[in-house]
Amino acid sequence: MSLVKPSTMIHEVAELFHNGMPFDKVIGLRVERCEPEGATLSFDAKPELIGNPIHQILHGGVISTALDVAGAAVTFAAALNRMPEMPKQEMYDRLGRMSTIDLRIDYLRPGRGQVFTATSHIIRAGSKVAVARMELHNEDGTHIAFGTGTYMVG
Amino acid sequence: MSLVKPSTMIHEVAELFHNGMPFDKVIGLRVERCEPEGATLSFDAKPELIGNPIHQILHGGVISTALDVAGAAVTFAAALNRMPEMPKQEMYDRLGRMSTIDLRIDYLRPGRGQVFTATSHIIRAGSKVAVARMELHNEDGTHIAFGTGTYMVG
Amino acid sequence: MSLVKPSTMIHEVAELFHNGMPFDKVIGLRVERCEPEGATLSFDAKPELIGNPIHQILHGGVISTALDVAGAAVTFAAALNRMPEMPKQEMYDRLGRMSTIDLRIDYLRPGRGQVFTATSHIIRAGSKVAVARMELHNEDGTHIAFGTGTYMVG
Amino acid sequence: MSLVKPSTMIHEVAELFHNGMPFDKVIGLRVERCEPEGATLSFDAKPELIGNPIHQILHGGVISTALDVAGAAVTFAAALNRMPEMPKQEMYDRLGRMSTIDLRIDYLRPGRGQVFTATSHIIRAGSKVAVARMELHNEDGTHIAFGTGTYMVG
Repeated sequence: MSLVKPSTMIHEVAELFHNGMPFDKVIGLRVERCEPEGATLSFDAKPELIGNPIHQILHGGVISTALDVAGAAVTFAAALNRMPEMPKQEMYDRLGRMSTIDLRIDYLRPGRGQVFTATSHIIRAGSKVAVARMELHNEDGTHIAFGTGTYMVG
Repeated sequence: MSLVKPSTMIHEVAELFHNGMPFDKVIGLRVERCEPEGATLSFDAKPELIGNPIHQILHGGVISTALDVAGAAVTFAAALNRMPEMPKQEMYDRLGRMSTIDLRIDYLRPGRGQVFTATSHIIRAGSKVAVARMELHNEDGTHIAFGTGTYMVG
Repeated sequence: MSLVKPSTMIHEVAELFHNGMPFDKVIGLRVERCEPEGATLSFDAKPELIGNPIHQILHGGVISTALDVAGAAVTFAAALNRMPEMPKQEMYDRLGRMSTIDLRIDYLRPGRGQVFTATSHIIRAGSKVAVARMELHNEDGTHIAFGTGTYMVG
Repeated sequence: MSLVKPSTMIHEVAELFHNGMPFDKVIGLRVERCEPEGATLSFDAKPELIGNPIHQILHGGVISTALDVAGAAVTFAAALNRMPEMPKQEMYDRLGRMSTIDLRIDYLRPGRGQVFTATSHIIRAGSKVAVARMELHNEDGTHIAFGTGTYMVG
C-alpha cells in the first residue's frame, strides 16, 4: 500500500474539502490560502447572504460560518503537517473526524462591503485539540468580526 | 400620529423579520414561537446545509446561524414587551438597531437528522443588553448543540 | 504492582486536589459533591473576595474561579469513572495532565450573599475533551452566573 | 458644584479602584498602565496563587481574574475619556455601575514564571457596551492565555 506524506496534500485536500462542502458553496467561500501558518478565505456579497434587509448587512450566521471554516482550514493544515506518512485513505479518515468543539464570535461592526476576507492563525497547537483565532474584514480593511474556535484534531 | 403597543406586534414583526431576512430563507428557518418566555425555530435537512459530505451532517455554520436567530428572536420578543406605546416606525427603527454582540456555540454531537429545532430563553434581561441560551435538537430529541448569545437590545 | 479501580478513588482524589490546590483555599472552596453526574462546591462570603467595595459584591474573578473548579471537578470525576484499573501513580499522572482549554462566564446578577454554591454537569463527554456547564447561586437561590468550560481529559 | 474632566482622573481612579478592590490585592495586581489605548497589569508568582501543586503552575482562576481586570481597566479608561465634565460623585457613580457581562478565557500554556503581565486593548468601543481583548505573558514573553471580555460601560 503506497504511503503519502500528508503535508504535500494540503492543496488537494483544501480543494476537496472546499468543493465537497455544500454549505461552503452556498456562502461562496473561496480558499485563498490553507497553510499551517495561516489560512485565508474570501467571499463576495450577494443578496441571499443578507440578514438585516433594512441595513443591507451580512447575516451574523454568514460571518460565523466563514470564521468557523477559516479556523478549521488552518487547524486542518497544521494537523496534516504533523501527520506521519500514511495511506491516503487513512489520512482522509482522520480528517473526516476533525470537528469544531466550540466557537466564539465577537461582532464588531456591521457586515457592509462587496468582498469579505476571513483570516486565521493557530494560538494553541496540540496533537488532540487546537485553538485558532480568526478575523473578518471587508475590501476597505474594515474589521467586522473576531472569532476564536477550539477544534478536535486527533 | 397613532401609537401601537409593541407587545401586540410580536407575531407581525416575527413574520416580517422572518420573511425579510434572506439568509434565514436560505436555511429554511421557520419561526414556530416568538415570545418573551421563549422562542422556537425549526428547519428541515436538505443537501445544501451539509458540511461534511462523508458523514452527511449539518455544517457548523448552519447550527450557529439557527442558534443565533433563536437567541435574537427571544431577546427581540422580550424587548418588544418592554417598550412603551410608540409610532410603528419608531418601533421598527429600534428593532433595526438590535444586534448580536457575541455568540458562543458548543457543538455536542454530529448534526444528523431530518428536522431540527432551535429553542431559546433569556438568562439576563436588561434594558440595554440581553443574554440568551439556545439549544438545537433533532426530531429524535438528540441534543446537537448549545449556544449562548449576548445581544444589544436598546 | 497493585492496581486500583479509579472510580473508587473519587473522594480521596477530590480531597487531595481540594486540599492540595492553594488558590482553592484562598477562595475557601469546599467540595460538597464530586461525581460523574454532577459536582457541587460551596464557599462563604468574606472581605477579601470582594471586587467592588461600594456595592460589596464578589469579584468576577472569584466567580470564574469557583465555576472553573466546579467544571473541572465533574469532568475529573467522569474521567476517573472511565479509566481502567491502573497503578495509583499512573492515575495521578493522568489527572495531573488534565487542564482547562477554554472557559466562558456569563455574569447575570451582582454576587451578593453569604454562602455561594457552584454546581456543574457534563454536556459533552469525550475520551479526550469534555465540556461542562456550571452555575453559581447564593443561599437565596439567586442565580448569579453561568459558565461553560472545555477541558482536556485524556 | 465643581465639575471635573473625567479624562484627567484616570490615574486617581485607577489607583482608587486598585487599592479599593480587595480581591485584586489577594492576587497582588499592580496597575502599570490604564489608558484608553491599552492597559497593563502585573503580578508576582507566590505560593497561594498555585492551582496544580505538582506542576507549580498558576490556578486558572488567577489567570481569569487578571485578564478580567485588565479588560475592565482599559474599558474603564476609555469610558472616562468619553464622559463629559461632571461632578466627581456622579463620575464615581457611573464607574460603579460598570460591570463584566461575559468573559472568555483561552488557556494556551501552563502558567509558569515569576512575574506575569496582563495587557488589554479595546476591539469594540461603544457608549453602552465595550469589548476588550487581553493577553497574559510571563517574564520570558511566553504567551500563557488569551481573553475576551464584554463590558457594560454606560
